[in-house]
Amino acid sequence: MDKEAYLHSGERLDDLQIKDYFIIQHPDKFCFGMDAVLLSHFVQIPENGRALDLGTGTGILPILLAAKTNAAHIDALEIQTESVDMARRSILLNGLSEKIEITEGDIKEASSIYKKGIYDAVFSNPPYMNENHGLKNPELPKAIARHEILCTLEDVVREASLLLKPKKSFFLIHRPHRLAEIFEVFRKHHLEPKRMCMVHPYIHKEPNMVLLEGVKDGNPMLKTEPPIIVYQSPGKYTGQLLEIYRSDGFRK
Amino acid sequence: MDKEAYLHSGERLDDLQIKDYFIIQHPDKFCFGMDAVLLSHFVQIPENGRALDLGTGTGILPILLAAKTNAAHIDALEIQTESVDMARRSILLNGLSEKIEITEGDIKEASSIYKKGIYDAVFSNPPYMNENHGLKNPELPKAIARHEILCTLEDVVREASLLLKPKKSFFLIHRPHRLAEIFEVFRKHHLEPKRMCMVHPYIHKEPNMVLLEGVKDGNPMLKTEPPIIVYQSPGKYTGQLLEIYRSDGFRK
Repeated sequence: MDKEAYLHSGERLDDLQIKDYFIIQHPDKFCFGMDAVLLSHFVQIPENGRALDLGTGTGILPILLAAKTNAAHIDALEIQTESVDMARRSILLNGLSEKIEITEGDIKEASSIYKKGIYDAVFSNPPYMNENHGLKNPELPKAIARHEILCTLEDVVREASLLLKPKKSFFLIHRPHRLAEIFEVFRKHHLEPKRMCMVHPYIHKEPNMVLLEGVKDGNPMLKTEPPIIVYQSPGKYTGQLLEIYRSDGFRK
Repeated sequence: MDKEAYLHSGERLDDLQIKDYFIIQHPDKFCFGMDAVLLSHFVQIPENGRALDLGTGTGILPILLAAKTNAAHIDALEIQTESVDMARRSILLNGLSEKIEITEGDIKEASSIYKKGIYDAVFSNPPYMNENHGLKNPELPKAIARHEILCTLEDVVREASLLLKPKKSFFLIHRPHRLAEIFEVFRKHHLEPKRMCMVHPYIHKEPNMVLLEGVKDGNPMLKTEPPIIVYQSPGKYTGQLLEIYRSDGFRK
């Protein structure tokens, strides 16, 4: 079947440049960004492990991680029906139905949707923003992906911890200005912060993203990795970022 | 009086290259390192403010900060008699007796030695290491300065918080691998992490120091500063570090 046949009106097909995988996106709705690529680079799934993505959107993380790891199976949860539908069609057109399963549902209830304590890796690129100004975005799909409207950071962390096997890891990308809160919530739910990487737009600028790994029932000892620097000059990526994109399949 | 007259046997006089200030150190005992210089660069004392150094050693931080800030008064606490004695002679030879007062005493009891809630800034370069292998260093003065033998991180943070005015800051340099614990202890004692700066030996190496500012009763919102990179090649400081040393008075 022709890949284009999977597209609905207004959607486009983006080549992920890895294993000939594509993703269906809708330019007027939420499209994946650099944060998804950085998180896919940071996540580690044990050989033949079972992994779970909390809030998968159009399925970018499971597809990239199916290409890059030897995961046995990746479950992915998403609350927005339209995103679930796009993700499912992307899984089909990539021939990944054996490996990835998309479920429509609420992160807050993830531990009753999936079996507790069975995952070797859980990851999430959740809504970052917790400002409380009522509705933040006239376009609700984008707002739900970006703001803590339907779930909070603590919901994501609590469910991730319940679903993980002991000593296995939760991977998160978030905003550095919430780091103290993130650490507190991790520890409250028995996830010990073990690995951290700051992402700076330029070497002399403050970071705007942070990658974190927390180990369930882990011992205290945080490893801070060298920072990721995105640009060397306006519009020009650093060699480090190009390397990440290349290893993740993108040629940019 | 000749500066050399303040020296005891085995001690040396180091020129701090700022305001013609010197410090007395003993090469066989604990000498200040780059961490003290970086912390002095990170600390901010409000104009005419009252500041306190918890664990001052030979007094390096109060002397540097007397040179660099308009603090009205700096108190400094130290438990080791020999260090107290050296620090007091350094204060005398620099003519700083009006501004800096060294007290011999235990950090664990700082809030009964000084008045609670009166400080505009508290800072500390405490022992970093909490490994529990019995005595770590045959030379006890160095061991006390480096290992949590006489006080723990929580002792320092608890006392700092008790001594600060509301909305005023505690400044700390410590090890990044203990960051999750540090944040937890800060928050437990009502110090909100507000500013963080990682110090990396090289741009592509993990950080080995972290500078932190916590605000008493502050609101959650952490600012992560661009990292400090120490070396550009072995033995060769970066321009950034030279700038810090220069602004702190050192020509290196």
